[in-house]
Amino acid sequence: MQTEVTGWAEEDRFFGPVPEQRRLALRLYESVADLPLVCPHGHVDPRMFADAEYSFGTPAQLLLVPDHYVFRMLYSQGIPLEGLGIPRIDGGSVEQDHRRIWQTFAEHFHLFRGTPTGLWLTEELHGVLGVSKRLNGGSAQDIYDEIAERLALPEFSPRQLYERFNIEVLCTTDSAVDSLNAHRALQASGWSGRVLPTFRPDTLVNILADGWSGQVDRLADMTGVDVSRFTGFVQALETRRADFKAFGATATDHAVIEPYTRKLSPLDVEAVYQRALKGQASHDDARAFTGHMLMEFARMSVEDGLVMQLHAGAYRDHNPVVSKRFGPDKGADIPVLCEFTRNLQPLLAQYGNDSRLRLVLFTLDESAYSRELAPLAGHYPALRLGPPWWFHDSLNGMRRYFDRVMETAGLYNTAGFNDDTRAFLSIPARHAMWRRVSADWVGGLVLRRIVDLDDAQEMMYDLACGLARRVYRLDDL
Amino acid sequence: MQTEVTGWAEEDRFFGPVPEQRRLALRLYESVADLPLVCPHGHVDPRMFADAEYSFGTPAQLLLVPDHYVFRMLYSQGIPLEGLGIPRIDGGSVEQDHRRIWQTFAEHFHLFRGTPTGLWLTEELHGVLGVSKRLNGGSAQDIYDEIAERLALPEFSPRQLYERFNIEVLCTTDSAVDSLNAHRALQASGWSGRVLPTFRPDTLVNILADGWSGQVDRLADMTGVDVSRFTGFVQALETRRADFKAFGATATDHAVIEPYTRKLSPLDVEAVYQRALKGQASHDDARAFTGHMLMEFARMSVEDGLVMQLHAGAYRDHNPVVSKRFGPDKGADIPVLCEFTRNLQPLLAQYGNDSRLRLVLFTLDESAYSRELAPLAGHYPALRLGPPWWFHDSLNGMRRYFDRVMETAGLYNTAGFNDDTRAFLSIPARHAMWRRVSADWVGGLVLRRIVDLDDAQEMMYDLACGLARRVYRLDDL
Amino acid sequence: MQTEVTGWAEEDRFFGPVPEQRRLALRLYESVADLPLVCPHGHVDPRMFADAEYSFGTPAQLLLVPDHYVFRMLYSQGIPLEGLGIPRIDGGSVEQDHRRIWQTFAEHFHLFRGTPTGLWLTEELHGVLGVSKRLNGGSAQDIYDEIAERLALPEFSPRQLYERFNIEVLCTTDSAVDSLNAHRALQASGWSGRVLPTFRPDTLVNILADGWSGQVDRLADMTGVDVSRFTGFVQALETRRADFKAFGATATDHAVIEPYTRKLSPLDVEAVYQRALKGQASHDDARAFTGHMLMEFARMSVEDGLVMQLHAGAYRDHNPVVSKRFGPDKGADIPVLCEFTRNLQPLLAQYGNDSRLRLVLFTLDESAYSRELAPLAGHYPALRLGPPWWFHDSLNGMRRYFDRVMETAGLYNTAGFNDDTRAFLSIPARHAMWRRVSADWVGGLVLRRIVDLDDAQEMMYDLACGLARRVYRLDDL
Repeated sequence: MQTEVTGWAEEDRFFGPVPEQRRLALRLYESVADLPLVCPHGHVDPRMFADAEYSFGTPAQLLLVPDHYVFRMLYSQGIPLEGLGIPRIDGGSVEQDHRRIWQTFAEHFHLFRGTPTGLWLTEELHGVLGVSKRLNGGSAQDIYDEIAERLALPEFSPRQLYERFNIEVLCTTDSAVDSLNAHRALQASGWSGRVLPTFRPDTLVNILADGWSGQVDRLADMTGVDVSRFTGFVQALETRRADFKAFGATATDHAVIEPYTRKLSPLDVEAVYQRALKGQASHDDARAFTGHMLMEFARMSVEDGLVMQLHAGAYRDHNPVVSKRFGPDKGADIPVLCEFTRNLQPLLAQYGNDSRLRLVLFTLDESAYSRELAPLAGHYPALRLGPPWWFHDSLNGMRRYFDRVMETAGLYNTAGFNDDTRAFLSIPARHAMWRRVSADWVGGLVLRRIVDLDDAQEMMYDLACGLARRVYRLDDL
Repeated sequence: MQTEVTGWAEEDRFFGPVPEQRRLALRLYESVADLPLVCPHGHVDPRMFADAEYSFGTPAQLLLVPDHYVFRMLYSQGIPLEGLGIPRIDGGSVEQDHRRIWQTFAEHFHLFRGTPTGLWLTEELHGVLGVSKRLNGGSAQDIYDEIAERLALPEFSPRQLYERFNIEVLCTTDSAVDSLNAHRALQASGWSGRVLPTFRPDTLVNILADGWSGQVDRLADMTGVDVSRFTGFVQALETRRADFKAFGATATDHAVIEPYTRKLSPLDVEAVYQRALKGQASHDDARAFTGHMLMEFARMSVEDGLVMQLHAGAYRDHNPVVSKRFGPDKGADIPVLCEFTRNLQPLLAQYGNDSRLRLVLFTLDESAYSRELAPLAGHYPALRLGPPWWFHDSLNGMRRYFDRVMETAGLYNTAGFNDDTRAFLSIPARHAMWRRVSADWVGGLVLRRIVDLDDAQEMMYDLACGLARRVYRLDDL
Repeated sequence: MQTEVTGWAEEDRFFGPVPEQRRLALRLYESVADLPLVCPHGHVDPRMFADAEYSFGTPAQLLLVPDHYVFRMLYSQGIPLEGLGIPRIDGGSVEQDHRRIWQTFAEHFHLFRGTPTGLWLTEELHGVLGVSKRLNGGSAQDIYDEIAERLALPEFSPRQLYERFNIEVLCTTDSAVDSLNAHRALQASGWSGRVLPTFRPDTLVNILADGWSGQVDRLADMTGVDVSRFTGFVQALETRRADFKAFGATATDHAVIEPYTRKLSPLDVEAVYQRALKGQASHDDARAFTGHMLMEFARMSVEDGLVMQLHAGAYRDHNPVVSKRFGPDKGADIPVLCEFTRNLQPLLAQYGNDSRLRLVLFTLDESAYSRELAPLAGHYPALRLGPPWWFHDSLNGMRRYFDRVMETAGLYNTAGFNDDTRAFLSIPARHAMWRRVSADWVGGLVLRRIVDLDDAQEMMYDLACGLARRVYRLDDL
């Protein structure tokens, strides 16, 4: 079967098949394609930029080993993680031959057909790394060589790629007890790139997690604050937020399985905290503590202006076989149904009318888009909706988001795009997909006579970078 | 960026961009565009028509102050409700200068881009009121003058607009203890328009609501029935239903947060009722009482033939800051997940096989469309699905409804369209959107060879007015 | 209104209206249209093929009386099931005149406009039975005659139709205590068709169901195993699985309202089993027992290689008026919200990493597609997602499935198509719809430059039959 589809080009990628809409989408896309990339949330390692000599390692280390989006798919088809070189917690042996790992990956590349991961990988290979052949079992080793060669070139250093990608700002995600040494070194280096930390205190909030008390001890050490009582714990967190702000942070990030919020009385929260310190906290304590801490963090955001991001709905480490052997973040986090209306009511009732708070919500439960999130965002001044997250950061995920969110929330109660990635090389492809799908959506509104072209042009700019800058307060700096 | 999109006209509004489908949709739409508007459910104030001298007030009073769809969006972007002239419960000062209110509204009109509210407002301004300029900060005062001028003309009285809009029947929503004086005056006036009341007893059902006992007293006064026991309370409600029927009512309306139904024993319901009268009812009592009253209302509908509407799933007054200051219905009602299959089982088991009952269900939880509502409606003779409601009364909301409901429920188990609005001037735009999106959907079925044009034509007629007339028993009169 | 739509033909049925996409979809469809039908799950009666003289009965008996998809729609519009000849449990009188039943059906055929049932019926009438007129009240009796005439011809015997339909394999669904006599006779007959049983033990799992102990007795009789203790019960089930395998079965099937799984201790499960035998089991017992049995069945599948199908989320016999009078499976099974992530965690933690287990999941709750099912299938090696089931086995149901599942799960973690029907004559129409909608989806990926034509061609083959063969282990035989 030969390709006889004519009149189509890569430039039309992701656009709908109606010629008139395609042309309009392309014009809208082109009007924003060269705008800088604003990256207010993600998981790129700041050491990449702190260390001018940073190396990405082998092609397998660059594209497969650190990316659970990629290896989960291979695992789902029966390929052991050991065979992909994923390190075991116990130091047990895993495949060390990166050419063999790469070969396995290449032979199964068809598994990614139609997936966003497949599209990003393709763009990383061809668009960023300049590979010309199509990846499969036959071409695997040649492509491996080609990538290795490229990576050795100075223009493939993270800093040079940052420039080439036209990134305006890149926010990392950092533990609340991170030393921020990478950010310190980065700022000291004199490099002009703008890489900012984000304050993520999750390991200090989940009082049942292994190592919680160690985290609290570390918090005390870093801040010099006595955390033997809850008020000290809170004060120490505030101290750390100030440290993050000093490095340019504009946001915090919080991940919870449910966005439960409820203010405890000072006595009650102290009691829970003391039980936690003694290792005697119950599951109810943990839930209550998390719910209370979200209230505290909202209060702090009102006071210090850090944008509060809330990522809700992931059941972490669903597969104990994998997490016991390989640790967390190995592709076995699975979403659950997520209730926002009742869970967030206490927080929103107390802080949601205050524009000093900026709360950006993310969901893995798309059924909440039109039912809960868009109506909430269309009312509360403090609230904005984050873009499609994780599994939904895809062509269809974006289309569903535009379809279900925008009519009720309004575009201006959304937060633009986050690439949310640890795969640095995938950043341009992710923003390009968002901008293309945005253009397809806005173009459709024009053709349906819902907005005119002047409106459309402003909406495109805001989708591409305006909203992300403003919502994350990245234009104040 | 200039508009170079050609071959498009307002006549194509909302239709998909494929030329063939667009042409077909237009033909289907035109075949029903001039049919009368059947309005079986809404919130227009009947005094508008009762009083031949009724005035809409200023442009701000007409289009913004009474419409929580509009001011919620401005509020969500940090504009205080006081600045929009929304009256405070405590009589505290709010903006009185309607030109300033209008200016604020106009300067933020871009917030409505792509929203149904924006589309209705645009059609009210340009289609109904004849405004030619586009609304923004610069044109605000000129447009204010233009509207004020129009509203002073006799042809912009509610009665004249009713005729111009080609309304066949307009049902209002009225408290079960409403005097019906407006409807009485209206019928006495000899005006030919058909405006009918709808019986809504919610304030008598929620035993925990402030003022419940006052409502019960009023019910006793109006009916002369002794309501000291539950049987009397029920009899008084039946009396009032008969009063509504005497004014032409064909339906009742019930709003609940969950559609829980369960028959209590006579002893149990009496006990709950007595606790409620003493102000000692618990939350469990309130839930049980609501569940029982839905059973009673279904029984009454079997007996008196009033169509029973059930609007489920809104968490009312989510924002206490707003409701304490401004009262209910201020844009802070937020949907919650809503379970129908189990909740409605007792009611449907008892009355759902009886075609004398006509139960029309509405949801704010679209995930229930294909999962629960369409399968229920595709089985129970008493059940029909209402059209997309509230947040979902939009282009995409309608598309999702057609997509998820029709294959399983079948068109003939749905209830046509409700405009459900308090914004009288938006009625033509709302029906036009429904008819256009219907035409787009039916046209798509023709092009996919699922129905032929004869079927399509009948489906269009039923969507435009046939179903609403028949389901609401408005063709019996 | 005349049909003026040009350039369209039946060959384009179900394809989108963009000419370029339509042409591509047609080419993709044609490349698989003649591939054999692989039918790994359904409810066709095996006696149809066992008995060379099998008769379909009257047109009403063929198309309406056994098919709850059809008569539920008539019932929903107030037509009594008695009038459609549905047999009453109490033997009470129902309509016996099949011509009158057919007439009623024909007069209400418009109720099926736009429904999948309507499309299948149309294809059965015109495509399979060669009826030329359109079914309505006027043509009803002529068409009745025409069908009756056809059914008397030898080429309309089930065996001949099996050949004509080009079926490669047809799996039936059979009680775990079925004698398998039909399958025995079928295999003894020497007929070349491949009709295989599927092991369905539901009546032995639901300990609260009427007749459970009778089923257990029957299990003991058939196997000669002492089932007085739970270990014996399990052993007897294993024996029966071996019997099914001997007749070629490759799969089991399990239907539950919630996919709750939890391993009980041997003591606990024995205690529950003993209470059940004494008729003293509670609802909690029943839930625990079902949850434990799913664990047992997964363990058995690991051992014997039978593919485990799990159909979750139907509230059975929602309408007691209908089920008391007419029995189960009368169109009153209604879906409920269904939780998979937490419910399946114990089973997947224990068996989900083992590729010997093949678990195929089906849902009636589409909100779980992107939230839970696709992420689970995109991780666990044992898991595959079944195709859109029951109410969602439709044009739009398939489109939603492709839209929400494929990006996250990947095509190769899905299970191809099931027709899942008891209406034998509808099988070709159901597969054709799946293949057409698949072609439309894959064609869209090509036009959006997501996959190329070579990929597309392989994907089409896998969707049409490759996946069903491999996932159900039907290619090993």
